[in-house]
Parts: sequence; C-alpha cells; structure tokens
Amino acid sequence: MTEDLIDTNTESDAAISALKHTPGAAFGSCRYKLGSIHEHRVQYERLIEVFRAHDIGYFFYNGGNDSQDTAHKVSQVSAERPDPIVCIGIPKTVDNDLALTDCSPGFGSAAKYVATSLREAAFDLAAMSRTSTNVFILEVMGRHAGWIAAACGLAAEHEGDAPHVLLLPEVVFDEGRFLAKVNEALERYGHCVIAASEGVKGSDGEFLSAGASDAFGHAQLGGVAPLIANLISSKLGSKCHWAIPDYLQRSARHIASATDVEHAYAVGRAAVEFAIAGKSAIMPAIRRLSDVPYRWDIVDAPLSAVANQEKLLPPDFISADGFGITEAARRYLAPLIEGEAYPPSKDGLPDYVKLQNVMTPRKLTTAFTETV
Amino acid sequence: MTEDLIDTNTESDAAISALKHTPGAAFGSCRYKLGSIHEHRVQYERLIEVFRAHDIGYFFYNGGNDSQDTAHKVSQVSAERPDPIVCIGIPKTVDNDLALTDCSPGFGSAAKYVATSLREAAFDLAAMSRTSTNVFILEVMGRHAGWIAAACGLAAEHEGDAPHVLLLPEVVFDEGRFLAKVNEALERYGHCVIAASEGVKGSDGEFLSAGASDAFGHAQLGGVAPLIANLISSKLGSKCHWAIPDYLQRSARHIASATDVEHAYAVGRAAVEFAIAGKSAIMPAIRRLSDVPYRWDIVDAPLSAVANQEKLLPPDFISADGFGITEAARRYLAPLIEGEAYPPSKDGLPDYVKLQNVMTPRKLTTAFTETV
Repeated sequence: MTEDLIDTNTESDAAISALKHTPGAAFGSCRYKLGSIHEHRVQYERLIEVFRAHDIGYFFYNGGNDSQDTAHKVSQVSAERPDPIVCIGIPKTVDNDLALTDCSPGFGSAAKYVATSLREAAFDLAAMSRTSTNVFILEVMGRHAGWIAAACGLAAEHEGDAPHVLLLPEVVFDEGRFLAKVNEALERYGHCVIAASEGVKGSDGEFLSAGASDAFGHAQLGGVAPLIANLISSKLGSKCHWAIPDYLQRSARHIASATDVEHAYAVGRAAVEFAIAGKSAIMPAIRRLSDVPYRWDIVDAPLSAVANQEKLLPPDFISADGFGITEAARRYLAPLIEGEAYPPSKDGLPDYVKLQNVMTPRKLTTAFTETV
Repeated sequence: MTEDLIDTNTESDAAISALKHTPGAAFGSCRYKLGSIHEHRVQYERLIEVFRAHDIGYFFYNGGNDSQDTAHKVSQVSAERPDPIVCIGIPKTVDNDLALTDCSPGFGSAAKYVATSLREAAFDLAAMSRTSTNVFILEVMGRHAGWIAAACGLAAEHEGDAPHVLLLPEVVFDEGRFLAKVNEALERYGHCVIAASEGVKGSDGEFLSAGASDAFGHAQLGGVAPLIANLISSKLGSKCHWAIPDYLQRSARHIASATDVEHAYAVGRAAVEFAIAGKSAIMPAIRRLSDVPYRWDIVDAPLSAVANQEKLLPPDFISADGFGITEAARRYLAPLIEGEAYPPSKDGLPDYVKLQNVMTPRKLTTAFTETV
C-alpha cells in the first residue's frame, strides 16, 4: 500500500541462505488487515497499481489464516483483469490452525520448544517439591486452538511424567474438576505440572484472563497462568510458580525441529514451482502419507477453501477428562518435533542474519489514501 | 534430619554419567533452613548423629549462599568433636552471587539461555514493530543481584541491537528516566527490548512488583514485567509484550554453556580431591587466570569467608546511565556462555535421566523433634 518494496538482489547468497537458521520475518511483517473487496476495492486496486509499476507478476504471501484470506482476496481481484497476477499463499503459523495442510511451518519448532521447556522445568520442580514449590504452570500461545498446549503433552514419556494437566481452549474451564485433577496429581506424584493455553475460557465463553488487572488498576496484558496459580494457592495451599514464554516460544530457532525447517523450506520452494507451472490462487499444503516412518509430500490447496477456516484440535485428540491428549494426538504430533537443526554459534550465541533490506525507489507519484 | 538417605550404589554408571546432561537436583533439594548454632544446636547434633549411624565421614553440600552457610555451620559444630566430619561446600547457583569464586556453576547456562532467548525474541519484535507490538520485556531471575539481567546484554553485538534497556536491582528505578530511555530507543530503532530483573526496586527500597494483585484481589506471585508493560503502554502508547521464563531459565539444559558444564564437573571433582587431601570447611572456587584466551583453575576458599556474603554487580560493570553493561562486564561474562553442550535426543526431545533414588534403611529408632 505504501510502495515499500525491498530489493533482495542486493543481498549476498550467504545472507539469504542464513535465513534458513534465523528467526523472525526477515522483511518485516504487516499486521494491516485489508477490508472486504466489496467495501474497500480501492485498497486492492492500489496493490495492483504498485505491482504493475514495478513489473511484479508474482505475489507470494506467507502467514496464517488472515494472510491466506488476504492472498485469496488479491487473487480474486487480480483474476478479473486481462493480465492476472499469480497469487500464492504460503502456510506459516505457530498456531497450526490452517485448514487443508497437515501442519503449518513454525508449529513443529514451537511444539519442540514447549515440550522441551516443560520437561526441563518439571525436573526442577520435582527436585524442590518436597519442601518448596510443588505446582508449576506453563502458559503457552493459542487463543482459539490448543495445538501448542497439546504439544506440551509430548514431554510425558511414562505414567506420572509431567505435564499432569493440560488446559485447552477447546475445553470449557471447570474450576472444581480442575482443582480435583491438580489435587490428584499432588497426592500421587508430590507435584503437579500444568500447561495452559492463553485462550482458556470459562463457561461464559470469555477468556479466563479477561478480568485481570494490575496494581495500577490497568487491565493486565495477558496472563492466565498467574490467575490459575492464585486459584491453586488459595484453594489447595500449594506454592506455585508459573512461566509465560510469550514470543520466546515462536522465535526459539536455537531448538527448532529439523522436520519443521524442512517443511518451511519445502512449502516455499513448492510455491515457486507451482507459480512457474502456471498455478494461482493456491497454497502449497503438507500432506501426510505415513506416521511411522514419517512420510509427507506437498500438494496444492485452493485458497478459497483455506481462507476463513480455523482448524481446532479434533475431539479424538483430547482425552476423555479433557485434561490430556490421546494416542491419536501423539501419533500426529510426534514426527513434527523430530530432528535437531541447531543454528551456527558465534561467541556462545546463535549467529543470526539481518538483511540490509534496501528499498526499491518508488515509482508512483501519489501516496495511497482511502476516502471512506 | 529425617534420616532420608539415598544409596547411590544401586544406580548404574550410565545413569550417573547422564546426570552431566540432566537438569534439576537428582537427589531432590532441601529448602529447610537450619537455625543458628547457638539457639538450635540440637539440629546440628541430630545431623551428626545420623552421619555417625551410617558411617558417613564426608559431607558435600552444594548450593548458593544459604547452602554454604549451612555447610559452614555443620563444619563448626563437627570440628569440636574428636572425629570431625569433613565438610565441603560446592558452589551452584544461577544467581552467581557467591563470594570468592569467579562465578558459580549454573550461572553460565542461565546467562546463555537468557541472552539467546532475548536475541531471538528481538528478531521477532523488530519484524512486527512497524504495525504492531514495538516493546518487549524479558523478566529474568535475580532478586538482589543483577547478574542474569546483565548477561542479557551479551545479546547485543552492534549499536542498536537489543537489549536497549536493562533494569538491574543494583540501580534504583526512576520512572521518568526509564520512560525517556525507552522513548529514545523507540525513536531511534522503531522498537525497544528491555531485560528486567525480578528484583527491580523503587526509591523506597521496595520491590516494584510488591503491590501487584490479580483479578481475585490476591497478591500477585511475581511479575515486574506486566507492571512495566502497563506503565509503558499507558505513558508512551506503545503495544507491549512480555515474557517471564521463570524456572525455564535455570533448567534449560538443552542450551547449556559447555564452559559452565566443565565448571560444574570440576568443582565437584575438586571437592572430592580436597576431601581426600584432608581439607575441610572449604569450598572449591573457580579462579580466573585470563579473559582471552579464557583460562581458569580451582582453588579452595574458606567457608567462613564465603558464608553470609552476597556478591552484587560491581559498579564498574554498570554503564553510566544505569541501563546497560560496560566493556568490563562483557569481558567477564563472555567466556561463561562459550561452547555448546547439547544433551542427547530421543523422539525429538532431550533424553534426561531420573535416578531410582533407593532409600537406605533407617538405623535410628527416634525421629527428630526439636523442643524450642
């Protein structure tokens, strides 16, 4: 919209290659949501005007549900023109809630991060639980879909291993049943580890964390974990600790899943191959062929079918009591965290690349304004 | 005190070796603080009674300041007896606040974890900052000493790199100066990354987080990051995100510093060697011989000089404005995070060991009771 275009030709091959082991969006990221085609057609006309001015014939847009919806809308407007622009959506979201693809790049690494972190913190907790803290809560991302919280379940290998309780947005929070479950773990194992989705909701459909405020009386930004910790400490008398890794869980490239890195690269490559083959208005999707051994390939999914869907945890992935995952969930999740893909190190820290991001000179004489 | 003794002879050599790559305290951990020798001598008599009953002649106790103080007191009481027990403290604390040792095992890995995590989250933030969140706060451990927050400073390699602001417990929090510093980073770089010690204090000497309460009106367990986030969003209008890794930062064996692992092993081995050589009432201490190349050895420090000390950040490690670290701090910190020591993987997760911890049969007929 603002004609801010980056010329990747000025980047070295080494810098571009290093993106494969660097977190974050190298060109920046846009959270500007386009309006409906009907009411805000001028936005789409502007995009196409910019593309034409710079002789851009291919539009690749990566992200989650909103991004696929945007790619779909641009493809619709463009298709009506005599020389349509090729529009391809590329799946990428830690939320793993995109339809038609078996999983979304980014999720496998977030899953590996939370399962690893939960297992490690559980070792710490188990050691202290006899004379100090005996409850630990890990709050993970997922406002509507519980994929990341479900992945925490992979940390448990044997009966009694952490996590002992999962709180999923797909399951209505019931204080009494939850406290009984925590108490059961405390009695059996001497400690209790909980993984909670940020999007846990009460029976009124509201986020549990919605009413929280801080010492200044301001609405608190996020944080279902401290609420649950206070609930447990006041009702069960346990000493609780909690962690909220927030962005850490989606940028932890240092413990990425090798499978996830392969997926991410494969969908990008397939996007280019599909474009060259003349396809448009599609998203490369990961198709699972086998759980064990894990085999997969890439197919094309129509953007029209991807846009405005939200893939939640299927009921058969959630245990009968609602506080755990099933074997079916484990079979699905297990291959996605497989394999190590450590980044190179420099001075003891991961050596990540920052692109120069040299802007292409603007060609249009007018800035975009929309008169509503 | 409770005569709970673990027989390590039942563990396999492989299990014992695997402790080198496993987080947490393998035998459990005790947060019971012994009283003063003068007023609670009966506690120390009980310990010695248990040692005698099981023919224990060597007492190795690892931990931070409180643990070294305990080891020191046990050595004092024991020394008055005809056949004194050898008492050796072993340094181990992520807080890095033990006196007389150049650093404490555990700190280097926590330092590597927080610097890595902060760098990664900063890449994520920088990508989003133009149209969404532009402030990120990482809250790290350190109630009195700012070593872990200082280590976050290692994430910055070049001018403008994150973190842009450190909040240390050694520096009194000044709201006006802090907001000006955040604003300066926002204007210069478009985003601002802050590392805050949990122990940040106001001019009244109280923890900043002391007054926080949640939606239920309960005192909030920890959390200076949400307070700072709300301060920034209300005063500067920025969208903030924050993370509190809590136990994650001290149990993240998956990204341990190889230097730290070497230190941990070396102080344990030295403790045994010192004991065999007839030394007692000492702590093996790491002595730095050179920054670059990093060279160190182990010396013995008297427990009497270690106990009840608290090593804070020296003033020459803190930048003039109080919001950063100096070159002297970097020279000190840099070698401690060097080297990778990845644990073995199984099914995509670190493969850690749980000891059987078989208890030795009790020999004493009475349980300990203290009549005060």
